[in-house]
Amino acid sequence: MRAVDIIIKKRDKGELTREEIRFFVNGIATGRVPDYQAAAWAMAVLLNGMTPRETTDLTLAIAHSGEVLDMSDVVKIAVDKHSTGGVGDKTSLVVLPAVAACGLPVGKMSGRGLGFSGGTLDKMEAIPGYRVDLTTEEFEKQLKKIGLVLCGQSKDLAPADGKLYALRDVTGTVQSIPLIASSVMSKKIAGGAHAVVLDVKVGNGAFMQNLKDAHELADLMVKIGELAGRKVVALISDMNQPLGCAVGNSLEVREAIETLQGGGPADFREHCLHVAAHMLVLGEVTDSLAKARKLVEKSIAKGSALAKFRQLVKAQGGDLSYVVNPNKFPRAPFVEVVKAPRSGYLERVHARSVGEASVALGAGRAKKGDPLDHSVGFVIHHKVGDKIKEGQALFTVYANDKKKLAAAVKTVLAAHEFDDFPVPPLPLFYE
Amino acid sequence: MRAVDIIIKKRDKGELTREEIRFFVNGIATGRVPDYQAAAWAMAVLLNGMTPRETTDLTLAIAHSGEVLDMSDVVKIAVDKHSTGGVGDKTSLVVLPAVAACGLPVGKMSGRGLGFSGGTLDKMEAIPGYRVDLTTEEFEKQLKKIGLVLCGQSKDLAPADGKLYALRDVTGTVQSIPLIASSVMSKKIAGGAHAVVLDVKVGNGAFMQNLKDAHELADLMVKIGELAGRKVVALISDMNQPLGCAVGNSLEVREAIETLQGGGPADFREHCLHVAAHMLVLGEVTDSLAKARKLVEKSIAKGSALAKFRQLVKAQGGDLSYVVNPNKFPRAPFVEVVKAPRSGYLERVHARSVGEASVALGAGRAKKGDPLDHSVGFVIHHKVGDKIKEGQALFTVYANDKKKLAAAVKTVLAAHEFDDFPVPPLPLFYE
Repeated sequence: MRAVDIIIKKRDKGELTREEIRFFVNGIATGRVPDYQAAAWAMAVLLNGMTPRETTDLTLAIAHSGEVLDMSDVVKIAVDKHSTGGVGDKTSLVVLPAVAACGLPVGKMSGRGLGFSGGTLDKMEAIPGYRVDLTTEEFEKQLKKIGLVLCGQSKDLAPADGKLYALRDVTGTVQSIPLIASSVMSKKIAGGAHAVVLDVKVGNGAFMQNLKDAHELADLMVKIGELAGRKVVALISDMNQPLGCAVGNSLEVREAIETLQGGGPADFREHCLHVAAHMLVLGEVTDSLAKARKLVEKSIAKGSALAKFRQLVKAQGGDLSYVVNPNKFPRAPFVEVVKAPRSGYLERVHARSVGEASVALGAGRAKKGDPLDHSVGFVIHHKVGDKIKEGQALFTVYANDKKKLAAAVKTVLAAHEFDDFPVPPLPLFYE
Repeated sequence: MRAVDIIIKKRDKGELTREEIRFFVNGIATGRVPDYQAAAWAMAVLLNGMTPRETTDLTLAIAHSGEVLDMSDVVKIAVDKHSTGGVGDKTSLVVLPAVAACGLPVGKMSGRGLGFSGGTLDKMEAIPGYRVDLTTEEFEKQLKKIGLVLCGQSKDLAPADGKLYALRDVTGTVQSIPLIASSVMSKKIAGGAHAVVLDVKVGNGAFMQNLKDAHELADLMVKIGELAGRKVVALISDMNQPLGCAVGNSLEVREAIETLQGGGPADFREHCLHVAAHMLVLGEVTDSLAKARKLVEKSIAKGSALAKFRQLVKAQGGDLSYVVNPNKFPRAPFVEVVKAPRSGYLERVHARSVGEASVALGAGRAKKGDPLDHSVGFVIHHKVGDKIKEGQALFTVYANDKKKLAAAVKTVLAAHEFDDFPVPPLPLFYE
């Protein structure tokens, strides 16, 4: 078998066999297939597509390019979740403790933010001392002990994915639905998941800009799950406006804690209840979404979800006093409350603009390795559809620099659009 | 400007600007654009195409990625020729001396054979001592002195082409008409050509397998010439059977010498007259093809073409005694004349099979750097359409190994197909 013949086959719209896909993926992992061949192949896949069968074989080949975790002796059914990423998406911080509090152990490996979209690890690291780099032994031990882990991806898991992703980023081959689906699913399978709740975000603040693409990605990942013997539920949720109100690392942690305390923005709370309920049903804790939702609500109401979050922070070395008293989080030196320039109905809060503005403030990274400031970001006070009066507080900016503050005010003000006539609110989920 | 954005634009079927193409090509030449980005881009170009304007800009950018020769003070109109390569194509060995003998100085840089298709340099090197690696100074001096040069491509000419071609070879991106056209034309322009006769071969023994692709390539190269201010004539010639009779390096040199002496196979002689006449008209030596053809015929008849060939060999250090007495060329140790297994009309002499069989004998290279045996090859005694009697000599094999001889006999016998009914001969040119 020769790598060039596999590239040519895909170039000519052929369907690759399982053996050809394994040969190519193992070659990427070992370095036997050089970057330039992988890049040409990725472009051919992007332009000519892959069948669900090919994508499943690709997913499994990537998953098996390194260590594959098996948590069967700790968890009967290992349920994972994955969000395709967005602005203000701090869902894992609420959903995981709630689900664990309801009796379903959950160990999750998350990623860092890149571009306009934030990352769970960056948010958790806003809590001083919180460690994200656990060994496999630590992961297993903690999962057994407290039923909850939230850490970074081990380098030994799906190494072909790491290489391929870095290459796709610089060769214009990120936006391929089969490549995105196999990247997500391979990491879940390598992490030992038996079942996965996928949250596919769609809108200007997401990877998938339209419902058709989001559907295609969601359907493909469900299909991969089927073919690979994993249960997969895919939700399609809105990312045209930020999720919840807070955008920025410690601001989002605070909003997550409020939500675990029973408060928090209505849209974010509702989003978390929905995702958590699906996880509980997949994990066979209960047999209906309605019952599952009740369990999650109860875990929040009685404080067991928050208690689980505290256990998590403590187990991974975080300073609990910040969770007990969120006012301890350092406040950014420049804070400005920006007022509505006119009355009207909020027609749009452009999520991507808000995300990009938060990166400019220092809350995210333009490129890998850029330093972060956990204190900066925004609190967006309103949702699309809200009726607003001129002079009412529209959003608050937290900045570490006066110039950046001024730029952020300008960008995020422009991200808010008004209409004279009532505007319907955006749906939380499309299905 | 970022390379990745240029890749994305072509991926999304955009038309690249001249500046974008220059930026990318210079990046390839300097190494600033890494191989993996060039590979992804080449695949996007192959699958999404390029307009003639883009291809012209690509051609000029590649041509100007290194030194561009200017022979204006030696030749008024520098006329070059290029064949897309085939089996038994020793045209340059006859055409260039004939054209030079008719008063049009011509300096040509040629390539080596790769795969089933032979290379002019390999053929000339069958003459002991013949040097193909001339410096630019030697090239100019010889062109001025004897009006004829036939050497290898200087590394300083179109360096981006060398890098891109090596990359295309291993990433399945060879078969792209805009990339082939720009590769050919960039080298001609860098070599200082004002006018070019292109011989686009079509058939099983050529790169272009069908007339549609050959037409597309020919039209595109003519269009590039127009847009780049060069006169280009493209001929489309048959490569379903070998050109002439000899296939193999010293065998082909002998056939070329015979042709320069006024003999040689009729099809090969006719092919040479046609190409040479076009060169003379482009070089404004005379004003009609008919007159030009007469001049070429005369140069052969009176021996001035052969004299020019001898001057060439001598100037580049070759041993003239081989040209004077071609029997001096070493004869392969195993020679077998293979007889027709049946009577009938010759329906097919599969050029590619013959080419591949000659590589297997050692006359060509399966990969770069493989050693050659100049003495091995075939003489094919008949052309498609010939009426043949059982037992008549069909072809002769020249081999350096008994096993290889037997394999070659088998392959080339299978390459000959017969019919009971008369078969029309193949055309030499399609237009």
